[in-house]
Amino acid sequence: MTSPETDNTFHVGLLGYGTVGAAFAALVPEHAPRIEVLTGLRPAISGVLRRNSGSFDEILERSDLIVELIGGIEPARDYVLRAMRAGRHVVTANKQLLSQYGEELWDVARAEGVQLRFEGAVAGVVPVIRVLQESLAGARIDRVHGIVNGTTNFILTEMARTGMTFAEALAEAQRLGYAEADPSEDVDGRDAAAKMAILARLAFDTPVHLDQVRYEGIEQIQPDDLEYARDLGLGLKLIGTAERTGDALSVRVHPAFLYPGHPLASVSGPFNAVTVESEAITEITMSGPGAGGPQTASAVLGDVISAMIPPASTPPTTGVLELVQDVTSAFYLHLEVADEPGVLAQVAQLLALQGVSVKSVVQKGLGDQARLVMVAHPVLESRFGAAMEQIARLEFLRAPPRAIRVLEEEFG
Amino acid sequence: MTSPETDNTFHVGLLGYGTVGAAFAALVPEHAPRIEVLTGLRPAISGVLRRNSGSFDEILERSDLIVELIGGIEPARDYVLRAMRAGRHVVTANKQLLSQYGEELWDVARAEGVQLRFEGAVAGVVPVIRVLQESLAGARIDRVHGIVNGTTNFILTEMARTGMTFAEALAEAQRLGYAEADPSEDVDGRDAAAKMAILARLAFDTPVHLDQVRYEGIEQIQPDDLEYARDLGLGLKLIGTAERTGDALSVRVHPAFLYPGHPLASVSGPFNAVTVESEAITEITMSGPGAGGPQTASAVLGDVISAMIPPASTPPTTGVLELVQDVTSAFYLHLEVADEPGVLAQVAQLLALQGVSVKSVVQKGLGDQARLVMVAHPVLESRFGAAMEQIARLEFLRAPPRAIRVLEEEFG
Repeated sequence: MTSPETDNTFHVGLLGYGTVGAAFAALVPEHAPRIEVLTGLRPAISGVLRRNSGSFDEILERSDLIVELIGGIEPARDYVLRAMRAGRHVVTANKQLLSQYGEELWDVARAEGVQLRFEGAVAGVVPVIRVLQESLAGARIDRVHGIVNGTTNFILTEMARTGMTFAEALAEAQRLGYAEADPSEDVDGRDAAAKMAILARLAFDTPVHLDQVRYEGIEQIQPDDLEYARDLGLGLKLIGTAERTGDALSVRVHPAFLYPGHPLASVSGPFNAVTVESEAITEITMSGPGAGGPQTASAVLGDVISAMIPPASTPPTTGVLELVQDVTSAFYLHLEVADEPGVLAQVAQLLALQGVSVKSVVQKGLGDQARLVMVAHPVLESRFGAAMEQIARLEFLRAPPRAIRVLEEEFG
Repeated sequence: MTSPETDNTFHVGLLGYGTVGAAFAALVPEHAPRIEVLTGLRPAISGVLRRNSGSFDEILERSDLIVELIGGIEPARDYVLRAMRAGRHVVTANKQLLSQYGEELWDVARAEGVQLRFEGAVAGVVPVIRVLQESLAGARIDRVHGIVNGTTNFILTEMARTGMTFAEALAEAQRLGYAEADPSEDVDGRDAAAKMAILARLAFDTPVHLDQVRYEGIEQIQPDDLEYARDLGLGLKLIGTAERTGDALSVRVHPAFLYPGHPLASVSGPFNAVTVESEAITEITMSGPGAGGPQTASAVLGDVISAMIPPASTPPTTGVLELVQDVTSAFYLHLEVADEPGVLAQVAQLLALQGVSVKSVVQKGLGDQARLVMVAHPVLESRFGAAMEQIARLEFLRAPPRAIRVLEEEFG
């Protein structure tokens, strides 16, 4: 620590105050009490460098760590280098900078013995950087596949779903905030290429500059490509690939059709996902929201905390949560019943008495084979259990009732 | 380091030599050269404690770090405590121990200032422990859902796919090595409960003992449950849940039906997956092979390397890989053609001349609307490009040909 104070404040200097910067500045005070429990240190923003206000030198002087969220090459590069040379850890989400000047920055970080963390630069809060740098540090990686641009994945998902043209789906993405006013670096594949250059560098210990990544975008995709693909059982994604081919490495970005069993085939909308393949581990897939201010800011905060804590310490419990047993669940209910009038009515009445509401019913078979299968809306498990006890006593039941929980959809 | 030697060897003491232990002992020398580049230290096994050979005290004396792969409570607990009290880092994959004596172990690790890492204890090489402890250290987590037992997921997948009974699918799992001779802790849900206790502790900073986790297994699932579920559009998984309910915490394991859009619905066979939900990040899903000696050994090795390296250092490049541009791809090819005889033959001949072999063809429309859509087997992109150039010159073509790559299925 280089904190100029004697208290336990951890001073974080923030460079840049766009969408991610503002979200990060809001997260820090919100999470400071919890982070203090985790690390023994309380993070606070020691200064913010905006376009027209703030002095980098003053902020650097009073910070333990610098967060760089300006983006682009200069002055970001100069600030990051100066911060590390002054012995400060740096957290950045700057994919342009890392894909073009990464070797220079990593050399300086090693030479100065400071941490340079950049989880937010690729796939937002999906922890692909950490997994490549740490979990898989010892693995021989064969291939990395990624959907690393949320804008294009949203556009392709909409084109497939609605039959829209590229231009229509882009307009929809812009309306919903998934594409910028100038979307060219997203839709032409260059943004994904920068991210794949970073992933390839980490996975294969080989220097990869953005200029060495071959990329194609999605502007030329036609609605009937998606239609024919559906006939062939394929889905279309903008895929980044970094793979060993013999003793060489290929890094590229292009649209590609996927068979439905592929781990990336089900990644839709603005989500990102990365699959890492290695003989020893088969494959790991990670997915989640790829971009957006709060998500990227969360990734940046995770990096800041990592720089604060001693590695792999499990903090003491705060123990504020009581453990409960009775929770709310939806249920599937399977009844083997005698095929006679009034069966459904009696079952439904017993369920209703306990506040169990039925969502769907399937009645199948006749005579000895009659089955009543229903799905009930979420209800306290104790109340559903009470209804089950009463139903089990009904005399037209020919086997004990069977119930299995149903997970309700929460997202998407 | 407490290395008794003056060279750069990092001495790893191995306790236990079952499937995972043997796989780990094989991984260390295989990856030692690469790890030396990463960390500056060369790991070597300093001693192995087997059931009938080896002395714990002697191994401890000559080790910098202890890997515990004995399993169960004693003597594993005693050894782990003694190793930490002697100032050694410990890596373990012991879910029973952590779900029952975790607080004691974490207290000692903090007090001694040593690392206690345990990625291999939950979901094998899927990096869920690291993500909860590090990436999401600052996030307020609302819920963790997991498929954390590969045996039961394989059995449920087989039952759904083939209509087998539970007993038949279990026998198949045993035959393929996905279930042990005594599968009771897997199929009754206790194994998953231990893993969920660990995940809940990390996600919610609340002490959770295995005895506090309510669990049900899958022995009672009938083939017709799966059949009816399919009618209702649902898939069945053994789901672990840890979630905030108001100011309380619920941790439980039970079979549950999932709607197809759920991020865990597509996890099949012996794979594991965990979804973490938090308002700030929406959700992250991680999946991969859940168990197996080599996979768990890889997770253990990742933990050992993490204990060796300074955090978040990006190592210098080894730069052994050349970057290549021409790679092999499968292609979708879309041609707008005049509806006349011989069109397909001419296209096929030009493809064949470049060694492009056609996998499937769809011909659609008539007259001005005629389309020829094909999928070609993998071929060097330069050769496919050469075929495309020749096809583009065919006079019956009414628009430039369109080609999109197709990702071939590698696994599963």
